[in-house]
This record gives sequence, C-alpha cells and structure tokens, in this order.
Amino acid sequence: MRYVNFTEEPETNKDEFYMREALKEAHIALKLGEVPIGAVIVCKDRIIARGHNLTERLNDVTAHAEMQAFTAAANFLGGKYLKDCTLYVTIEPCIMCAGASFWTQISHIVFGAHDPKRGYSRVEQALTHPRTEIKSGILEADCGQLMKDFFQQKRIKS
Amino acid sequence: MRYVNFTEEPETNKDEFYMREALKEAHIALKLGEVPIGAVIVCKDRIIARGHNLTERLNDVTAHAEMQAFTAAANFLGGKYLKDCTLYVTIEPCIMCAGASFWTQISHIVFGAHDPKRGYSRVEQALTHPRTEIKSGILEADCGQLMKDFFQQKRIKS
Repeated sequence: MRYVNFTEEPETNKDEFYMREALKEAHIALKLGEVPIGAVIVCKDRIIARGHNLTERLNDVTAHAEMQAFTAAANFLGGKYLKDCTLYVTIEPCIMCAGASFWTQISHIVFGAHDPKRGYSRVEQALTHPRTEIKSGILEADCGQLMKDFFQQKRIKS
Repeated sequence: MRYVNFTEEPETNKDEFYMREALKEAHIALKLGEVPIGAVIVCKDRIIARGHNLTERLNDVTAHAEMQAFTAAANFLGGKYLKDCTLYVTIEPCIMCAGASFWTQISHIVFGAHDPKRGYSRVEQALTHPRTEIKSGILEADCGQLMKDFFQQKRIKS
C-alpha cells in the first residue's frame, strides 16, 4: 500500500500517476507471456489492489486484471462494494469486466486505450452502474502500444 | 463426477435432469443465506463442474455460480475453452456471466427462469459467443420460485 499526497497536484497528474502503476502491472503480465493488461484500484489516494492478466497462467478466461483487482479490493476493504474507489486499467474493460464493475458499484473507472473490438462500449446500452463515472485516454499511447507490440510479436512467432 | 446414460432418454429429460442438479446447487446457496442460484457444467454427459452463488460468503460480487463453474470446468479439462460443454444455470446469467461465457466459447447455455431486471438478454446486442446456443425455460417454475421465496423472506425479515 502506498500513500501519495496529491493535494497540490492537478487531477491529470494523479490519473497519469496511477495509470503508470497499472502499466507496471501490464508489464508483469507481458513478462509472463500474458496479454499485457494491468489494473490498480485506488481508494482515498491509496492503491488498495493490483492485478494483471493471468488467463494463460491460471488457465482461466475469467482471470482478467480487473476481475482480480475487484476481488482483491473487496478483500482489502472487507466489504463487497467499491464505492469511493477508482479502477485504473490500461485497456478498456470487456463486457465481463464492465458487468462485474456494475455489481461492485465502483465510483470511477479510468482506462487507457480503447478496445473497439472487445471493449464494453461497443454495446450501445449502459453496462456499467449508473453511479460509475468513466474517463478514458489516460496514457493511451503507452497502454495501446504495449498491446500492439505483443500481438505483432505473437504473429511473428506463429 | 457422475456418468449418466441418456442414450434412450429424450433430450428434454436430459435438460431437466441436469437442471435439477443445478437446483441442488441453488439449494446449497439458499442454506448459506445466499441468493439461491446454482449451476453445473456438463461435458459428454458428465457433470465436470458445479457452482453456487457465494457472493456473501466470499465477500465478492464476482462469485456468481456460473463464474465458479467456468473456472472449475476449465480446471477439470485442463484447457481454457469449454467447447462441447453445456452450462446449466437456474437463473438467466447476468451481463458479467454472459461476458465470461463469451470468453469460454461454451457450446450451450441452458437456463431456468428469466431475469428481466438483471439478465443479459435485456441488452439488445449479442453478448454471448456466436457459437453458443441458448435454451431457456427448463424447470422455469422451480428455478424462479426459489428466488421469489428468498426475496420475500428477506423483505419480511428487514
């Protein structure tokens, strides 16, 4: 856990700071040969949970970075709901993860790069909780490039 | 694990048989004070995974019956994908669980009672995998009544 004093910092820097932490998680996934997506959950300027994609390692398609971060955050807080929490995730959540975020009633979701093919926003109806505010495009280039490089590398190998 | 010979049984009886197994799981959830939803996953006429809702017990909104059954089935099979598998679940899956089913590429989903409020089919666009066939209304009355009784009881207590 880490406490950061952002009182005198502009909002964007805060978002970029936490997105960089999510990117660190994505890099851990990359090293494990996983699709490089990372997430952190922040509550009152503290990172209370971290997660990175582990679908290959755990042989489980539900082991997305966000799902693990939701479970870990609830465990840390001792309550199921993630009100007053922010999910930072490097790539736009998929439908499963958006659906999970609905149940958590999380206050904010901030994601880096859009995922037009598998992202939840391809669905026109709202999937997230009405109380969840969403922001996107934070460190978009860095978050997206990691994915592009990964899949390009995969194609070269196969 | 259980092997059942359905060679001479009509298709409906097979669905009802497995839905009764899912209902048994729902009853286990009920006894634990959980929203009574249960699921089993069947592959080649064998139940390879079971799950019941454990969101309260695990303090985790993602701990739906289906999510646990998906993870357990992949673990049993040693592969991430649930092709040639059927999910039997007492209540229509929510958006999170439908989104998870997409990633599993499961062949069939059979559910009991519809959930007009939280079920995935409230979304007009397809959320499940194009290869997933869906059937509903198997033991619908039994599956739905369990939920009605549960919430009625909750209202009396509160």
